[in-house]
Amino acid sequence: MAVGEAIQGQIYPVAGVRLAAVASHIRYANRLDLVLVELAENSVTAGVFTQNRFCAPPVYLARAHLKEASPRYFVINTGNANAGTGASGMSAARECCAALAQKAGVAPSAVLPFSTGVIGEPLPVTKVVEGIHAAFGGFGGDNWALAARGIMTTDTRPKLISEQLTIDGKQVTLTGFAKGAGMIKPNMATMLGYVFTDARIAPALLQAMLDKVVNRSFNRITVDGDTSTNDSCMLTATGCGELTLTSMDSPAAIEFISALDRVFRTLATEIIRDAEGATKFITIEVNSGGSSAECLRVGYAIAESPLVKTAFFASDPNWGRILAAIGRAGIDDLAIESVAVFLGEHQIVANGSRDPAYTEAQGKATMTQDEITVRVELARGNCSETVWTSDLSHDYVRINAEYRS
Amino acid sequence: MAVGEAIQGQIYPVAGVRLAAVASHIRYANRLDLVLVELAENSVTAGVFTQNRFCAPPVYLARAHLKEASPRYFVINTGNANAGTGASGMSAARECCAALAQKAGVAPSAVLPFSTGVIGEPLPVTKVVEGIHAAFGGFGGDNWALAARGIMTTDTRPKLISEQLTIDGKQVTLTGFAKGAGMIKPNMATMLGYVFTDARIAPALLQAMLDKVVNRSFNRITVDGDTSTNDSCMLTATGCGELTLTSMDSPAAIEFISALDRVFRTLATEIIRDAEGATKFITIEVNSGGSSAECLRVGYAIAESPLVKTAFFASDPNWGRILAAIGRAGIDDLAIESVAVFLGEHQIVANGSRDPAYTEAQGKATMTQDEITVRVELARGNCSETVWTSDLSHDYVRINAEYRS
Repeated sequence: MAVGEAIQGQIYPVAGVRLAAVASHIRYANRLDLVLVELAENSVTAGVFTQNRFCAPPVYLARAHLKEASPRYFVINTGNANAGTGASGMSAARECCAALAQKAGVAPSAVLPFSTGVIGEPLPVTKVVEGIHAAFGGFGGDNWALAARGIMTTDTRPKLISEQLTIDGKQVTLTGFAKGAGMIKPNMATMLGYVFTDARIAPALLQAMLDKVVNRSFNRITVDGDTSTNDSCMLTATGCGELTLTSMDSPAAIEFISALDRVFRTLATEIIRDAEGATKFITIEVNSGGSSAECLRVGYAIAESPLVKTAFFASDPNWGRILAAIGRAGIDDLAIESVAVFLGEHQIVANGSRDPAYTEAQGKATMTQDEITVRVELARGNCSETVWTSDLSHDYVRINAEYRS
Repeated sequence: MAVGEAIQGQIYPVAGVRLAAVASHIRYANRLDLVLVELAENSVTAGVFTQNRFCAPPVYLARAHLKEASPRYFVINTGNANAGTGASGMSAARECCAALAQKAGVAPSAVLPFSTGVIGEPLPVTKVVEGIHAAFGGFGGDNWALAARGIMTTDTRPKLISEQLTIDGKQVTLTGFAKGAGMIKPNMATMLGYVFTDARIAPALLQAMLDKVVNRSFNRITVDGDTSTNDSCMLTATGCGELTLTSMDSPAAIEFISALDRVFRTLATEIIRDAEGATKFITIEVNSGGSSAECLRVGYAIAESPLVKTAFFASDPNWGRILAAIGRAGIDDLAIESVAVFLGEHQIVANGSRDPAYTEAQGKATMTQDEITVRVELARGNCSETVWTSDLSHDYVRINAEYRS
């Protein structure tokens, strides 16, 4: 079950990118679980990775390889996160890279490994290597839907988005996909996200663009406050298209980053719409804060409160729980008597307590919708932040109690 | 449903304390919802209150009255938290105090008000005042069970404990009760807790004792990370008994504080055993930390992880989720390769990954128990902290989705 319709729209191939996906039986039989991505020579890739201290061996290795060489291949498996697996997990990740590198005739450091799935089980390397061999013959420039489906775990639908636009008279394409539904509070990246463009962009600039858009998309979502051990997000510019960008602030770059923003935000919010057990998609806007940090503290206190989330699930306009979350968000000098809260278009809290004009019927009408915006005005400054989250339903508990059992 | 048996044992009256409880129909008909406590003249009371910035009018007023005068009465209602109610909520709390003060012939500042229940609804003052009049004739020194039941909301059983001991040849009694099952992450106190002793203890010393024991009991529990707007915990020394204490570190005081510790810890852990939807009682010990603060960060990251909590509910030894929680606890220089984790008596993680000797059968055997201890060794120093929590079950979602609807 997911909130709203899946992403619609045409998917444009990106010159310089080919993909393949196979079922290699890592955890389940006959389910796509291995995706390979091939990048044209001279492609530039920027990456961000989980800040969880228990990051998985493939994350260590991908980060190291990204420093050493320009990636030519990604190898992505589901069904096993190869996390908490120590030295043998590192060997396993290396073996996967080596197998693909040998097959492709590139250096192992030109391969980035990514794993997602259950934590703490040994990666079945033999199956992955067999899968690599099977997939290698199937590369195609149109296999986007296959790849997007191939990286899913508890996701109920693929998350794939594409945009083609003309900047400075030059056509440019952006296409990307992501996965993630639980253990979601990315802290530099989502579970797994891959976005590609045919523009030509130098490494440092590409990294700056990635950092910027990730902080407005994947780093603003939370399902359960649990940061994954395997979060990784890659942005590749193949340089095979017409557009070249050389700065962050040229009009062309601004237009490009704006498109990049749309792609990233769509993928990130699609993760929330498809969050484990989600029945509601909730946007939390925190405005007039003294700093971005305090806006985020308030936003996440609301977004991660089990009591707020169960109230959303029940369509109960229990705004007292929202106030209680704001009050414990850690802003020591917060003047409660200045705080305002809006639920959808209705003001529910004025001057720190119930707005006299607010009626329970207004709140109920908003809460029964699938998509709900909570707006908090802190009346302390000019900073704003938006975070997105889901509700806490019976199905969240069921999915996470059953998973791995 | 609660974990384990309710607290057993004899309840000893405390000289100088009388109690009364009635049904005043605040939210439900014919349910005890109003408790009065009368304290002997010259009683000394120490208090700690929620640090939620949205603290409720009764919390403001109780804190102010406690500074002005020695309390002679507590008035405690359930069914309505009188929180998020602004100036009219403050008037309501004042009216309740005034009604009891007039009846008793004391100053209003000698009355402390406490409210718990739904947030954001106006307190039905008339019903409370009628209840005060009805209860006033019913004071008795033996009404402890009645009072403990009278402050319950979603609790499934009363939380009442008593201890009588002889210190320096003098008999001393400690008896207390508490309530709380959800919106529990006290940050100076629990939802509501009241402990009484007949010892004679001066105000500053009593406050120091309360601060000390609260930090080892109510401030170490979490159900859902949600700090209430109404948390309050009071410790009263009536001075009507034989024992007088004048310092923190005399042998008599050490013995007394140790008994106080047992009483507070029993009440605090009983809140977790009776947590909303709880099927497991989980103790998280974090040892060999570099500071208490980092031990608590790790402890709470585990205790509040929805993924860890659903795994406990499912009796699934999904230790990868525990590792992931430790990894995101915010210790930037944590050396993962030194971390060890024990589940019950079994070591599950050695040197940051799965202990080679650990078997899934061992983990499963521990996880099917009602009471489980997770022990984390950080290998960074000599600090330790223990926190207590519950699992996340279908019933937690059901209770919090249905409550107030």
